Amino acid sequence: MVGLTILGNNSALPAHERHPTAQALHWDEQIYLIDCGEGTQTQLSRYKIRRSKINHIFISHLHGDHYFGLIGLITSMGLMGREASLHLYSPPGLEDIINLQLKIADTRLPFPLHFHPLQANAALLSDKHVTVHCFPVMHRIPCWGFLFVEKKAPRSLLKEAAIAAGIPQVFFGRLKWGEDYQHKDGRLVRNDTVTTAAAPPLSYAYCADTLYMPSLAQVVAGVSLLYHEATFLHDEAERAQSRFHSTAVQAAQLAQVAQPQRLLLGHFSSKYEVLDEFLKEARPIFPSTDLALEGVTYLLKPLRRPSIVPIAKG
Amino acid sequence: MVGLTILGNNSALPAHERHPTAQALHWDEQIYLIDCGEGTQTQLSRYKIRRSKINHIFISHLHGDHYFGLIGLITSMGLMGREASLHLYSPPGLEDIINLQLKIADTRLPFPLHFHPLQANAALLSDKHVTVHCFPVMHRIPCWGFLFVEKKAPRSLLKEAAIAAGIPQVFFGRLKWGEDYQHKDGRLVRNDTVTTAAAPPLSYAYCADTLYMPSLAQVVAGVSLLYHEATFLHDEAERAQSRFHSTAVQAAQLAQVAQPQRLLLGHFSSKYEVLDEFLKEARPIFPSTDLALEGVTYLLKPLRRPSIVPIAKG
Repeated sequence: MVGLTILGNNSALPAHERHPTAQALHWDEQIYLIDCGEGTQTQLSRYKIRRSKINHIFISHLHGDHYFGLIGLITSMGLMGREASLHLYSPPGLEDIINLQLKIADTRLPFPLHFHPLQANAALLSDKHVTVHCFPVMHRIPCWGFLFVEKKAPRSLLKEAAIAAGIPQVFFGRLKWGEDYQHKDGRLVRNDTVTTAAAPPLSYAYCADTLYMPSLAQVVAGVSLLYHEATFLHDEAERAQSRFHSTAVQAAQLAQVAQPQRLLLGHFSSKYEVLDEFLKEARPIFPSTDLALEGVTYLLKPLRRPSIVPIAKG
Repeated sequence: MVGLTILGNNSALPAHERHPTAQALHWDEQIYLIDCGEGTQTQLSRYKIRRSKINHIFISHLHGDHYFGLIGLITSMGLMGREASLHLYSPPGLEDIINLQLKIADTRLPFPLHFHPLQANAALLSDKHVTVHCFPVMHRIPCWGFLFVEKKAPRSLLKEAAIAAGIPQVFFGRLKWGEDYQHKDGRLVRNDTVTTAAAPPLSYAYCADTLYMPSLAQVVAGVSLLYHEATFLHDEAERAQSRFHSTAVQAAQLAQVAQPQRLLLGHFSSKYEVLDEFLKEARPIFPSTDLALEGVTYLLKPLRRPSIVPIAKG
């Protein structure tokens, strides 16, 4: 299963039973944690998300509503006897904060912590599931978005077509990775006549606290799921700008250009108890918009493509 | 109203819907916050306790389950526009932690923070309601208990008796503070014949994470309400000792000597989902024992004394 579970969708002040920002991105058996506001460890328990599956935590910026829950999660992992390394990606400064608190508590963690300070547009991680990049967004202090892209899948072999084209079975593996086949007599079998493209890679873009940045559309173009903050409604556009936040309309405008499969809005200001209005403002601009609701898992789904008819035999 | 609201009663790992340690001590319009585990600000909201009434926060020690919620509470107070000073009493180190986090977030609070590092048996505070002292307990790192004692109340005037004894009305105020009255002819009117003692002062003792220390009984003798940690049951007494914690039996044994009006047990290990056993072990030793349950307010009540019959007139 590839999907995103929202653990917190509120901005700085917790209110209306909503929590500060945290998201768990499931990628098969691996879970990537994105931001970690106060109470994240409790939210993980509530939604039965196993901490032991989290090996990488991405912190967008060092405002408290995005990381005050981290030290508690880390110490709890220690109390539970974790031994596996934990990787933390964040703007510089986090290492000092965490280490100072561990030192004063005289706590020695039973597992290694690796701090990875974020730098311009760096590739942060490449494991068997995904590659993860960060990209700068515009906030009051250094702040980053994250882009998760599925590792490229092999193409699907049209076995009957390949046999009909006289390609030896030993070459089939190379066909899956896109190679053409040349017969000894020089005849060329083009790869796209004997394979179909794999589904385009799944991808998730997280645009944390940021001013509306139209240029982000290029960075997040065509992702399967786009999360964009929408702290305010349109009538508070000035306030949003002065606080380096965005509105629902702006998030939808970005999506209108970037054309993700689906847009999720979050980081709602505590002034809004009811959230319907965010959808009312965003959907006319980008219909495939939803609210990021706590406890809900939003699946990343492969794009449906027109089915490809295998070429005729012989 | 003078009473203690429990905001968190669990030990380090949050579990079973229980939260790490935090308590709100109401003293008329003032609220003293004692410890501040992760999620305390949310618990304050849940139980409708107004943050603006909190001017003094007492942190027993710098293990995370007793203070990780503090930075979130402080920044939220700032976001809500607080202007009043906030006083923080804790072992040394807290100031560095809080200031580092504020600095990295580029946060300037709109109110003054005053840090008061704890020292041996010091008087921390004397306001119109209470005096507060700290006293050392024994834990893995420096750790303190807190004793809140009501300011001495004036004696109650037996007005008819005072008039009958010929004491001029202008002296009545001094009678309330315990003075005898001497007539010009040398006759003495003893204070206790024209006043009755005020109720003994209300008092609350908080014995945070600690080994069983029989010597504490002297410090907390006769308090109206005694909170003592009871992380484990009796069959885990060795484990309790090795971790510098106490058992329910030990807390009750302390109360048996100190004779508070009431004993509250808390800081339960996450290994216990059901807590009845704590009472079963403690009450045979000290019957007036209760569990510190989240959301419950335990009143501090004046001792009932035998009613005093005013002396006969004339």
